[in-house]
Amino acid sequence: MTQSIPFPSDPSQEVRLTSEKLTPVLEAMFVKKSMFQFDASVAVKRMLEADLYGIPSHGAGRICEYIDAIDLGDIDPRARVLVLNENDVMTVMDGSRSIGHVAATKAIESASAKAKASGVGVTALSNSQTLGAASVYVRLAVEQGLIAICMSSTGGATVAAPGTKSGAVGNAAFSYGVPIQNGAPVIFDSACGASSWGKLRLLQQYGLPIPAGIAFDETGEEATTLEAAKVLQSGGKELGYGLSLLCSILAGPLSVGRMPIKKTRSDSAEDSQHFFIVFDISSFQDPDRFHKHLNAGLDEIRELPPENPGDPVRIPGDRSQQCFQNYSQNGIPFHRSTIDEIRARAEQLGVVVEW
Amino acid sequence: MTQSIPFPSDPSQEVRLTSEKLTPVLEAMFVKKSMFQFDASVAVKRMLEADLYGIPSHGAGRICEYIDAIDLGDIDPRARVLVLNENDVMTVMDGSRSIGHVAATKAIESASAKAKASGVGVTALSNSQTLGAASVYVRLAVEQGLIAICMSSTGGATVAAPGTKSGAVGNAAFSYGVPIQNGAPVIFDSACGASSWGKLRLLQQYGLPIPAGIAFDETGEEATTLEAAKVLQSGGKELGYGLSLLCSILAGPLSVGRMPIKKTRSDSAEDSQHFFIVFDISSFQDPDRFHKHLNAGLDEIRELPPENPGDPVRIPGDRSQQCFQNYSQNGIPFHRSTIDEIRARAEQLGVVVEW
Repeated sequence: MTQSIPFPSDPSQEVRLTSEKLTPVLEAMFVKKSMFQFDASVAVKRMLEADLYGIPSHGAGRICEYIDAIDLGDIDPRARVLVLNENDVMTVMDGSRSIGHVAATKAIESASAKAKASGVGVTALSNSQTLGAASVYVRLAVEQGLIAICMSSTGGATVAAPGTKSGAVGNAAFSYGVPIQNGAPVIFDSACGASSWGKLRLLQQYGLPIPAGIAFDETGEEATTLEAAKVLQSGGKELGYGLSLLCSILAGPLSVGRMPIKKTRSDSAEDSQHFFIVFDISSFQDPDRFHKHLNAGLDEIRELPPENPGDPVRIPGDRSQQCFQNYSQNGIPFHRSTIDEIRARAEQLGVVVEW
Repeated sequence: MTQSIPFPSDPSQEVRLTSEKLTPVLEAMFVKKSMFQFDASVAVKRMLEADLYGIPSHGAGRICEYIDAIDLGDIDPRARVLVLNENDVMTVMDGSRSIGHVAATKAIESASAKAKASGVGVTALSNSQTLGAASVYVRLAVEQGLIAICMSSTGGATVAAPGTKSGAVGNAAFSYGVPIQNGAPVIFDSACGASSWGKLRLLQQYGLPIPAGIAFDETGEEATTLEAAKVLQSGGKELGYGLSLLCSILAGPLSVGRMPIKKTRSDSAEDSQHFFIVFDISSFQDPDRFHKHLNAGLDEIRELPPENPGDPVRIPGDRSQQCFQNYSQNGIPFHRSTIDEIRARAEQLGVVVEW
């Protein structure tokens, strides 16, 4: 629902593991790299939430990449997130090159607290690292009954603009969440390009080609493999370009960072910036009226005649809720090679793995 | 740049008129309908700004529609815009069914003032009417050195969602603006559907078909005429759907309004809601550093190799700036039938027209 290509799925290539089994191993890996236990616990929680909600491209499968970034000095496992500037409504934070999951958790918590007090809360987070899946932070605010938007800018200009096949803007993550009374929240989470790069890596892992309309190779032709893909197409023509540019500016120069086109080194060697906007519903109007009107509208959308009978129209968040119910009960499906890679790295770090 | 279909242009079907010549006539038309002179002046200014910046679908050509809405009681020409609720950062306003241009001008002014004082300013405007072009309000904040976002929800669910060809979400307007030191601002202004309905009306006026990929007829087939078009495709697949849903909620239930799918009467018979978010750059960081990094990034995007030589990559706002320079000097091009219609209605109201 939230992105154009579905995530690959093939039980014959997968193993299922519960988040309970993975958590101590992943935490221990970070702690072996000098991360504070508290921060390791937060980071692993956010990573596994991505997996539980069906975003395997941005979950636990990335841990070896983060360990590499710690080894290279790009992530500081003992960084302290600093408040540079704040008032009743906004905070500017310096992530001090901490892992993005820890810094972004503090950022959304600050924006949520300010929203509760002032109606609106905003955090601009500079000098951070990739945060994984943007929607897991949005969910933290939604769980408190708040509406939240997250824009995240990691890495260089890998998304083309209308009129060029060269990278112009970043593949920003744009996510928002709206709480629903007595139901699963509306959660939208998308790259502004035609796909996230993480999803293309998953396609490769499953032995699948990149579909048409997603990526260009260096000559500007359609790329079907990850190796050939140099630039992504925009996720929504001018709309994707415009939204990506907005994310690149708010989660960029406004957050004490640079524009993606000026980031030319690897993703973790460059800072990431993240931008959060949170609204408290009751500051705007009667929450009961808000929920009544919202639910009435969403119910009617779900009841629209589907193009394919049996495949009802979905609200963003419906699919991730189904994943959560399935995966928290039956374990999270991982590609076997992902689990092999995590196990090998954990054992190399001296962490005991019992799966 | 900001929308998929270019605006039609055919000098043989057009007449050029300056905003100076149009202003007194349009103002007098509203005043004849009991609008306060001050409000008429604001509304006409916003309408002609849309034309000057190259958005003829949402400019002076709509005045007869607004006069009709006053006659039907859908727009109250003497309405007072009320503040329902405010604090240092946010305002909830009731447009009292005033013409949207007047209410939205007050709304962005309030959000801008709060942003200057608190770093962030938000206005939710309920019970209003269509505001014309969303970007003209964004420009009011940008002229004060602020970053602004405008989301506007007018009318029912005329944009399909993935998985259905029925209308699910509104054709929300999404616009933002970012000031540029010593240059034209970044101004993005787009419908969340594949086109605005106003642009499709212009195509019809110029005798042009609706291109493929824009609209469905009532059987779900491609519509090529305005009469046949019942539902618009999303402006950016899942991204357009997701953004439209966000606009529908913020400029909807959060702004004391309803979801578009629950609006079933004509656009002006239903309330519109508008939502504004404004950021003060200097509250987040050193404005000189912000502008230095932003300009460096935008310059590099403009210098990317274009797909068509001689057609350089544009930043949103580049085209509208060219229009402004051309039209403020040489007059605004209007379709002859638009001018004929305005002239006939003005004369019917007893307004003297000298063009």
